[in-house]
Amino acid sequence: MTDLRKTVEEYWAAAEARDWEAFAGTLAAGVTYEAPLSRERVRGREAYVRFNREFPGDWHVTVEQVVAEPGRAVSRTRFTLGEEVNIGISFFTADDEGRISAVTDFWPEPYEPPANRAHLTERF
Amino acid sequence: MTDLRKTVEEYWAAAEARDWEAFAGTLAAGVTYEAPLSRERVRGREAYVRFNREFPGDWHVTVEQVVAEPGRAVSRTRFTLGEEVNIGISFFTADDEGRISAVTDFWPEPYEPPANRAHLTERF
Repeated sequence: MTDLRKTVEEYWAAAEARDWEAFAGTLAAGVTYEAPLSRERVRGREAYVRFNREFPGDWHVTVEQVVAEPGRAVSRTRFTLGEEVNIGISFFTADDEGRISAVTDFWPEPYEPPANRAHLTERF
Repeated sequence: MTDLRKTVEEYWAAAEARDWEAFAGTLAAGVTYEAPLSRERVRGREAYVRFNREFPGDWHVTVEQVVAEPGRAVSRTRFTLGEEVNIGISFFTADDEGRISAVTDFWPEPYEPPANRAHLTERF
């Protein structure tokens, strides 16, 4: 089984290009998407392409990093929507044909560090 | 270069055990920690061990997933502190000896999904 890096790079390049045929080509028919922290789920390739295709706004995505091993990968991406920038972290699982069978997304937000560890860190 | 999985598993096991000698053994002398979304940084092994050792509260950590390749890895962990549960996602880079030279942390929080994509998802 080849690692998932190339597939994940194609997935994001296709999303950015709104090339939904190429995007669908990276996905298993039974792909499942989950966002555990908003408890959203999408089941199946058709619904998942639609979820991305109809996702509101003129968003753009660039890949910051992909870490990959056989059958699994993680990407860190930068989403921009107008002035807004968000970091997305996606965990991918592949089926035996190397198509993406599961995507699990996390969208961390900026936060203020607790004061009780300020003596242990610097800020940047 | 071996992949980083074993080192990352040792790093978390040592943190959970408060075995700071074993924890330090997973780290390069010049290790840098960054939390981009709180803009916190810690430089050097001694300061980074102290950051973890003195981190407030009786926290516990379990590893949910590690994705690893030569020189890099990502872990997804579950931190509990009393009733509070947080998901941590950490990106690791290794030096040529396989010691951790950089840690970049993200702490995503639960959120409500935007109403304008409710027709595209189910909830769980």
